Amino acid sequence: MPLHFNLLTLFPEMFPGTLGHSLSGKALDQAIWGYSCINIRDYAQGVHKSVDDTPYGGGAGMVMRADVIEKALLACNDALPLPHSAKENENTPDTPLIYLSPRGKPLTQKKVQQLSRASTITLLCGRYEGVDQRILDAYNFEEISIGDYVLSGGEPAALILMDACIRLLPGVMGNTKTAPEESFSDQRDGLLEYPHYTKPALWSDAKGNEHSVPDILRSGNHAEIEKWRNLKSFEITRRVRPDLLD
Amino acid sequence: MPLHFNLLTLFPEMFPGTLGHSLSGKALDQAIWGYSCINIRDYAQGVHKSVDDTPYGGGAGMVMRADVIEKALLACNDALPLPHSAKENENTPDTPLIYLSPRGKPLTQKKVQQLSRASTITLLCGRYEGVDQRILDAYNFEEISIGDYVLSGGEPAALILMDACIRLLPGVMGNTKTAPEESFSDQRDGLLEYPHYTKPALWSDAKGNEHSVPDILRSGNHAEIEKWRNLKSFEITRRVRPDLLD
Repeated sequence: MPLHFNLLTLFPEMFPGTLGHSLSGKALDQAIWGYSCINIRDYAQGVHKSVDDTPYGGGAGMVMRADVIEKALLACNDALPLPHSAKENENTPDTPLIYLSPRGKPLTQKKVQQLSRASTITLLCGRYEGVDQRILDAYNFEEISIGDYVLSGGEPAALILMDACIRLLPGVMGNTKTAPEESFSDQRDGLLEYPHYTKPALWSDAKGNEHSVPDILRSGNHAEIEKWRNLKSFEITRRVRPDLLD
Repeated sequence: MPLHFNLLTLFPEMFPGTLGHSLSGKALDQAIWGYSCINIRDYAQGVHKSVDDTPYGGGAGMVMRADVIEKALLACNDALPLPHSAKENENTPDTPLIYLSPRGKPLTQKKVQQLSRASTITLLCGRYEGVDQRILDAYNFEEISIGDYVLSGGEPAALILMDACIRLLPGVMGNTKTAPEESFSDQRDGLLEYPHYTKPALWSDAKGNEHSVPDILRSGNHAEIEKWRNLKSFEITRRVRPDLLD
C-alpha cells in the first residue's frame, strides 16, 4: 500500500511543490506515494470564515483555532482511500499525527526511517503564531521540528519531512545501494560522509590553480580506499559535528 | 538593496516553490527579495551534456563535476543586477557561497539572522551523491545542513534557508513585534515558545471532552501571565530540548 500524506494547511497550492519534480514526482505519478490537501479555511465558521483569533493573555500575532482545525482533521477520513486504518484519527506508528513546529523534537534520519514505514502520515501545518495548544493535547499530536530556526509556516517543513520519507520508499531511488552509505546511516556508524571526487583527475580552475584527486582513490586498492574513507568520515565529523561522536 | 539569491541547480523549476505564495510571494512581487536560477546542465560540455560522473575509488551513485559547476558559478555574475558586489565569487559575509549538505554545520536562527543581512547569497544545490570536493575547496564554499536527515537534493534545503531569511527582511512580515517573541529568539533566552490559546474559552471536542483555557491567561494580570509563559517556555525546553539549556 502506498504512503499517503494528509496535509492540513491554509496553503494547499504549496503542494506538491518540489516533490512534483524529479524522482519524487515520478513516484507520485506511479502512486508510490500520494497526498490529500485539506484546506483548513474550508472548515471555518461564520461570515468571516476566520481560522484564527487573538491569543488569550495578549501578545502579538494570531493563533489558529482548535475547533476549526478539528473539523479539518475529521474531514481527512473522507479524503482517504478506503479501506484505511487512519479512520480513528489516532496517533499510532502506522498513522502518525504530526504538528510541525520549531518547538518539536528534532527530526532525525532514524525517525524518518520509522515514519517511512507508516501507511498514512497526517501533517498539521501552522501559520501565524501557531495553533491552539488544546488541539495538540486532545489528539495527541507529536511535535516535530526540522531544525533550530523559524520558518514562515509549517508547509515548507512538511515538504522536507515528506521528501526525506519518500526517497526511502521502495522503487523511488534508482540505485538502492546508495541509501546505506550516506550521512547518518547505520553503515557509517552515524558519521558524516567522506568527500567525493570524479573526473577530471586533474582539474585546473579558472583562477589557474590545479586540483588533483587524492592518489589513494586511483590506486585500485579497495581495502585502503575504504580505510581512507572511514578516516575522512571520522575527521569531518570531529571537525564539524563533534556532538555526533558522543 | 534587496536580498538576492543565486541558485545553482539542476532543477530550476523547483523555484520559487513555496516562496511564490503567501507573504514571501508578495515580497517577491515587491522586489524585497529576488533570485536567479542558474541551470548547471547549461554549462555541461560534450555531446551528452553530462554534469556528473562515477566516483573515484568506486561506490554507488554519481558525483557532480567540479569543472561544470565552476562554469555555472562564474555565470552567476551575468545574471546579477549591476553594480553588484558578488562579482568576485568570493565567500564573504556580504556574498556568502553556501553548499547545502547533510555534512554541513547545522543551520541556526542566529546564522539565519546573519545571512539575512547579506546582499547576495549563492546556494549550490547538489543531487545524486553530491559534488566533487574540489569545487568546495577552490571557492571556499561554506557547508550548511538544515538538519540530521537526508534529502533528495539541495533544492528543498535551499528553499528552507531562503524562507527563514526572507521572513526576517524588513517589510515581509505584517507584524514586526512577532519575531523577537518566537522560539530561539534572544528575547526568550533561546528557549522554546510557550503554548498558545485562543477562542473559544471553553472548547468541547468531537469526542465529548471539554478543554478550557488556563485561568491565568484570562486574568488580565500581565505580570503573572508573563511569569507563567516564562515558566512554560522553560518546562517545554527542559522536556523536549534539554540540550538548549546548557
